[in-house]
Amino acid sequence: MVEQLETFYRGRRALVTGGLGFVGSSLVHELVRLGAAVTVIDACFPDQGANLLNLKGVLEEVNLVVADIGAVDEISNFLVDHELVFNLAACISHVASVHNPLQDLERNCASQLRFLCALGELSPRARVIYTGSRSQYGSPLYLPVDEEHPLKPVDINGVHKTAVEEYHRVFHEQGRFRYTSLRLSNLFGPRHQMLHDGQGFLNWFIRQGLCGEEIRVFGDGDQQRDFLYVDDAVQAILLAAACPDCEGKTFNLASGTSLSVAEAAAAVCELTGASWRCMPFPLERLSVEPGNIIMDASRLQETLRWKPQWDFHAALEETVSFYRQHGHHYFRPPRGKVVLDRKGFALS
Amino acid sequence: MVEQLETFYRGRRALVTGGLGFVGSSLVHELVRLGAAVTVIDACFPDQGANLLNLKGVLEEVNLVVADIGAVDEISNFLVDHELVFNLAACISHVASVHNPLQDLERNCASQLRFLCALGELSPRARVIYTGSRSQYGSPLYLPVDEEHPLKPVDINGVHKTAVEEYHRVFHEQGRFRYTSLRLSNLFGPRHQMLHDGQGFLNWFIRQGLCGEEIRVFGDGDQQRDFLYVDDAVQAILLAAACPDCEGKTFNLASGTSLSVAEAAAAVCELTGASWRCMPFPLERLSVEPGNIIMDASRLQETLRWKPQWDFHAALEETVSFYRQHGHHYFRPPRGKVVLDRKGFALS
Repeated sequence: MVEQLETFYRGRRALVTGGLGFVGSSLVHELVRLGAAVTVIDACFPDQGANLLNLKGVLEEVNLVVADIGAVDEISNFLVDHELVFNLAACISHVASVHNPLQDLERNCASQLRFLCALGELSPRARVIYTGSRSQYGSPLYLPVDEEHPLKPVDINGVHKTAVEEYHRVFHEQGRFRYTSLRLSNLFGPRHQMLHDGQGFLNWFIRQGLCGEEIRVFGDGDQQRDFLYVDDAVQAILLAAACPDCEGKTFNLASGTSLSVAEAAAAVCELTGASWRCMPFPLERLSVEPGNIIMDASRLQETLRWKPQWDFHAALEETVSFYRQHGHHYFRPPRGKVVLDRKGFALS
Repeated sequence: MVEQLETFYRGRRALVTGGLGFVGSSLVHELVRLGAAVTVIDACFPDQGANLLNLKGVLEEVNLVVADIGAVDEISNFLVDHELVFNLAACISHVASVHNPLQDLERNCASQLRFLCALGELSPRARVIYTGSRSQYGSPLYLPVDEEHPLKPVDINGVHKTAVEEYHRVFHEQGRFRYTSLRLSNLFGPRHQMLHDGQGFLNWFIRQGLCGEEIRVFGDGDQQRDFLYVDDAVQAILLAAACPDCEGKTFNLASGTSLSVAEAAAAVCELTGASWRCMPFPLERLSVEPGNIIMDASRLQETLRWKPQWDFHAALEETVSFYRQHGHHYFRPPRGKVVLDRKGFALS
């Protein structure tokens, strides 16, 4: 399988939007390793997880553009003739979308719509992988949640995730490019931002544990979550982009198994020596809490003959170990600014 | 039933967005007749169907504001303390959304999101009726199309119709107001714009017939459509807003029966003396053509104990008769401009 990926990706022109973020940067590392010619576009919106250090080790091998994907006039030179587009750029914050839904509309829908219109012209027939989210389903009506489950997100961010997925589908059907949508479950792993708890809570638990704080679990901790290690997700994304059977379709990308939030907290405590306790949900979190989530990932697993390779506890240990080593780059806001030279390439 | 509606609506503060348009103005006439205190907001976007003459006879009895519903700073005075909101404002053009999806995003999603945020503050717990569309379903996977049918619109306008419906649902669940969504089938009747064929084709057939032109049917004319007369739709909308069982839910609003496009064309010919012929679909129309449509309206019919009162041919005759009498107001662009006095009220 790995050999097939190397054959497929070697020398291919690949664009990764959101490539300084958690999943995006992990994907970029793997694409570079496979020999692809990678362009990264990232807006570096504050608090969204972009971190130049996420590309440590491969920064000189990629073409990095710091820009909003919606600024198509500025970035059009970088959108030409890509064979593969991994469209991961998104502002992910359920709580923020309650307070500022219009910003969420602008940053997610408007930027994506401009980007996809330009992409259809500049990279016609590109294979585009869009990463959706389990939040598109909202509170599950049944478990495990399969791809036919109604889409009733609990917040505006979830509404916009679906609208952007739909842009991909409509443009695919109009022949502008070929898409696959992968709806991600609760991903965790190295390179996730650690500055606030507005995105994935498992990484936040790790921060609390490593900083010697008590881990705070909202509710009774019984909520089930479908955790997937980022390296497993990256393998599936790479396979999906190489798989013609995935074209024009939507898949859950998940482990298909679940763990309670309390079990996850306890596992972090075991590795870090911290303790945990339950506390009531803050009101603003309760309004975006979807209840138990387990996803049915069998459609993707069968199509790709892929399954997660990482055991939860081993992956967690790997993650904790990453932050023990690199935490100083993640636990404080990055120093300095990303600047662009006149070609639009970033210098750190 | 009519007596119940009069009791319910007499003296109620009702806001109608898009109230100068086809369905909106028909609703306003009925609300005024029932004794409601009506405010109309309409942006009067060119080509969208707003026509001051649509309110002929009731113009002095309504509070008319010519403004984009998204201009919430300008119109906030008019959003206060409504008990009933009929949110019909929308830019409907499937073909235009292919060429200018960003304008569609701005006029539909962005304006609606601003409006709904303001409405939640200024008219908390209002009953809001949103009119969605059969276009949200896309090409039917089965017939008749019920409310559980997947939402796979063929164009960006349809994607945005669903996103706006979802804003209503999310805000309902957040307790900002109470909503009902009614997904409309192919409506026809008086007060529909007659300047272009970018919206409902049956009214366009009537124009062609009355102007002595040959009626042009795209394709083989066998496509089935679920036609509903606007007066029947208005009755259902009024009943739904008065019905607590409709709160928080989505319904098809349709006849539940179908007619082929060729049969509809033949019926228009019978009334106008015109002839019709088939011609190939223009390419841009083919891309947004959903195939046969028949909607399952039983959920709404059972909840409201409502059913259409108008026979198709009688309703068509009524419509043709309206345009024979008033066609000069509809077949040419309206003369003059709508201007606002300093209170924001429109003067024609």
